[in-house]
Amino acid sequence: MRISSPSNEKIKAVIQLQTKASVRKKKKLFIVEGIKMYEEIPESDIELTYVSEKFYEEYIKREKISDNVKKRLNTKEYIIVSDPIFKNMSDTVTPQGILAIVKQKKYELSDILDKTKNQVFMVLEGVQDPGNMGTIIRTGEGAGIAGIIVNKETVDVYNPKVIRSTMGSIYRVPIVTSEDLGETLDYMSENGVTLFAAHLKGDAYYTDGQFSGSIAFLIGNEANGLSEEISKKAHKLIKIPMEGEVESLNASVAAAILMYEAKRQCSS
Amino acid sequence: MRISSPSNEKIKAVIQLQTKASVRKKKKLFIVEGIKMYEEIPESDIELTYVSEKFYEEYIKREKISDNVKKRLNTKEYIIVSDPIFKNMSDTVTPQGILAIVKQKKYELSDILDKTKNQVFMVLEGVQDPGNMGTIIRTGEGAGIAGIIVNKETVDVYNPKVIRSTMGSIYRVPIVTSEDLGETLDYMSENGVTLFAAHLKGDAYYTDGQFSGSIAFLIGNEANGLSEEISKKAHKLIKIPMEGEVESLNASVAAAILMYEAKRQCSS
Repeated sequence: MRISSPSNEKIKAVIQLQTKASVRKKKKLFIVEGIKMYEEIPESDIELTYVSEKFYEEYIKREKISDNVKKRLNTKEYIIVSDPIFKNMSDTVTPQGILAIVKQKKYELSDILDKTKNQVFMVLEGVQDPGNMGTIIRTGEGAGIAGIIVNKETVDVYNPKVIRSTMGSIYRVPIVTSEDLGETLDYMSENGVTLFAAHLKGDAYYTDGQFSGSIAFLIGNEANGLSEEISKKAHKLIKIPMEGEVESLNASVAAAILMYEAKRQCSS
Repeated sequence: MRISSPSNEKIKAVIQLQTKASVRKKKKLFIVEGIKMYEEIPESDIELTYVSEKFYEEYIKREKISDNVKKRLNTKEYIIVSDPIFKNMSDTVTPQGILAIVKQKKYELSDILDKTKNQVFMVLEGVQDPGNMGTIIRTGEGAGIAGIIVNKETVDVYNPKVIRSTMGSIYRVPIVTSEDLGETLDYMSENGVTLFAAHLKGDAYYTDGQFSGSIAFLIGNEANGLSEEISKKAHKLIKIPMEGEVESLNASVAAAILMYEAKRQCSS
């Protein structure tokens, strides 16, 4: 199928999913762009693939695509759109010519909590920057965490900029959206998870060696940190030491330092 | 002095410094924007300050500015420009109405190498993303490193996006630009600095406890990592363990994990 009209419903659907978190949420779909991200989409999650005319001519027709891409293109019919329309649908400045509508995966906390294991969780309260969010998901997979819990005020994890920064980890790290973060933290406590809040007023350093059993790190909004209400839920406030005149670290950097220190303490 | 013509030389100078690395390099100047970043500029480094008419009316005239800002505005004459022109000069979407032309600080390696201390350095070969660069500078100050060495292919550290991400650390972390990174690394080796390359082929983990004395971490370009030539200069290739299907970590995350592990090992 070929489309060259920008008012076609199938084109408008993509643009809405790119730009509106509310539409993504309602339809439980999101957009994945670019060849590398496309190759890693779990096949059964692909709803529909779009390629630009140029991509079709240069890669598909000449069979210059990897087996992974071929398999995914065969999952369902793909749509060829004119290059200008593709550019219009893309969230990037120089689109690669391939994107897909993909199903969101929904997790509940009970899906990922496993009392037989020592698990590490990240809890994010109002992290706003898409790059930070995506980087936390990517680093989280690397550090081997069990999942990420976000509140409703956190940036939509299916935002195209988040997706890009995850480098594919979005498909593999379970993310739970909590309607009431306080309640969720109570539930985690009751299930044996020790909650550590990253906090400037922390009375212990993150390197003190206290990470054992199942733990969660609580990280707040870039500008304001954790709210009083959520900080109070933590069993312990911990801090990362900072020299010079640095008042705080970037949220994704703080998260990375904590997740990797937990990994280090647990494997030593 | 008030300016309302966009073709005025003093306006054009700012726009050139915002957009052209070559102009910044030639004039040894850069642009700092926003009230928080402005407050922290070392007073003697300010060449010229620009405020929007709105900022002048709302803050300066009504004396709603901090002592730090007042002191800096008194350093030299400041220029008031019309709001549309200020918007044009700004690198941000919603400008705060104050920016300054600031002198670059030039460091040589010999300025920062101190054999009487155990120092930590970051060496960056071709890091391209301004956000990564700025975050490495900010985290570097927090971790207490002695300085950062960059090669000529690394993004200009005076790029406005880098400046913003440093959150002020640009004024405080010494940065050396190396004309020949291989030679610079030889010089560091000769002066007792142990060089650790962050490398996927590392044969030791970064947590093995080998960081003592003066050390440097070598980090490569986001897409390609370190070049063969530079990797060879390292005394040891180290790796950060990664689970799942993660192929690499974000450059600023990897740098943060290494710098903070060095801090931990040295203080324990």
